[in-house]
Amino acid sequence: MELFYAYEVSGRYCRLDAEESGHCVRVLRHRSGDEIDIIDGVGTLYHCRLTLDSPKGAEAEILEAQEGFGSHPYHLTVGCCPTKNNERFEWFVEKATELGVDRIVPLIGDHSERKVYKTERASRIALSATKQSLKARIPEIAEPVSVKDFIKSCHSERSEESLRLIAYCFEDEEAPRRSIMEVLKEMPGRPGQNITVLIGPEGDFSPEEARLALESGYIPIHLGPSRLRTETAAVTAVEAVYLWSLTL
Amino acid sequence: MELFYAYEVSGRYCRLDAEESGHCVRVLRHRSGDEIDIIDGVGTLYHCRLTLDSPKGAEAEILEAQEGFGSHPYHLTVGCCPTKNNERFEWFVEKATELGVDRIVPLIGDHSERKVYKTERASRIALSATKQSLKARIPEIAEPVSVKDFIKSCHSERSEESLRLIAYCFEDEEAPRRSIMEVLKEMPGRPGQNITVLIGPEGDFSPEEARLALESGYIPIHLGPSRLRTETAAVTAVEAVYLWSLTL
Repeated sequence: MELFYAYEVSGRYCRLDAEESGHCVRVLRHRSGDEIDIIDGVGTLYHCRLTLDSPKGAEAEILEAQEGFGSHPYHLTVGCCPTKNNERFEWFVEKATELGVDRIVPLIGDHSERKVYKTERASRIALSATKQSLKARIPEIAEPVSVKDFIKSCHSERSEESLRLIAYCFEDEEAPRRSIMEVLKEMPGRPGQNITVLIGPEGDFSPEEARLALESGYIPIHLGPSRLRTETAAVTAVEAVYLWSLTL
Repeated sequence: MELFYAYEVSGRYCRLDAEESGHCVRVLRHRSGDEIDIIDGVGTLYHCRLTLDSPKGAEAEILEAQEGFGSHPYHLTVGCCPTKNNERFEWFVEKATELGVDRIVPLIGDHSERKVYKTERASRIALSATKQSLKARIPEIAEPVSVKDFIKSCHSERSEESLRLIAYCFEDEEAPRRSIMEVLKEMPGRPGQNITVLIGPEGDFSPEEARLALESGYIPIHLGPSRLRTETAAVTAVEAVYLWSLTL
């Protein structure tokens, strides 16, 4: 099954941009009349008939729509400080997308070596991983924001509606950390449960960032005894939520 | 904390090969008298004093030994068919090592596109990931073997002593698959529990391979609803065992 991405769905028609059209028409040689599968990137799969086989801008008529195609029973935001080596962060974006994530927020921490992050490449990787893993919703790659500003921005959400976790490596006697599995197991696990996990940079979160998170209702967690690289920790958090959802 | 690997530990001395010696003496400029940390690759960390600072072959005297350094409470073998793209399999080796795995067996399946696999690069990656993640035991990268021969070779083990899982994607009405978390949760979870998980190639296991596995006491599992690449499935199996062990 090959999926294409429509930048526009209006009425009974889906429109593909030049890149998707070229792949559909020039590479895969689809012609008007062929039936193809198109996602809108926000959760719906459309089974369509190609009506305009232009490699610059193809159009297809919708025959059937399937909402929530390849969806998962939670809403997961991962805030993660991009790694020094870009490829490692992009690898995390690919794996998180395959497993199931809704929003990835590149965070700039007090101890981050990388203070700027461009999201274009990660967004392209999220799109191709979404199609490859047969999902209709492309995770949002947010613009970078500082750890402290991100934590403050969550203040609006009502905490009983969302589970907020922060993973750091140091011990704080006033706020002992529990394993992510222990915390998830205590969850009622409503479908669509909102979960946010914060993963720090190679140099970990600063004590000030950790304190602000705890004051804002974040639960301090650890990801087990192994010493994990930043991108491995981020994938482990997504795996924990994904595997936990299998037990609901 | 920087770890070095000793190819030989005899009596009170650890010996480093040319590569480790060069890194220790030339790159990090350690000199005789410096205290360094050395692993033997089979589970023990030695705190040592450098006695010979030759960049060709350094030696250090053992001051203190710590067995089971960075160990995990299970013994996990993952048999996985190498991916067409070598980097993806090597990425799995790195991540599995960081999390905790004991033995990785490259499998050649009926549907494998890759029929040969050289283990040198994967072994080097396992060594560096072991040191980077502060463990003393380097996972074994076994020589490649066919799926059927591997399954037959397990026959000797007594099944009550080891949990054997095979993950495939097709449905077999006679042997319905359960999620890996469901199966792990039923485990008594003795420390040192033996677990083997088989992950197929891009083209999945053949029905004959699956049948042979079930006849040999393997439990058929799935890794959840997401469609995962081979290397992502393999990492997800390691994550499931690692995260499950946090709940023991």
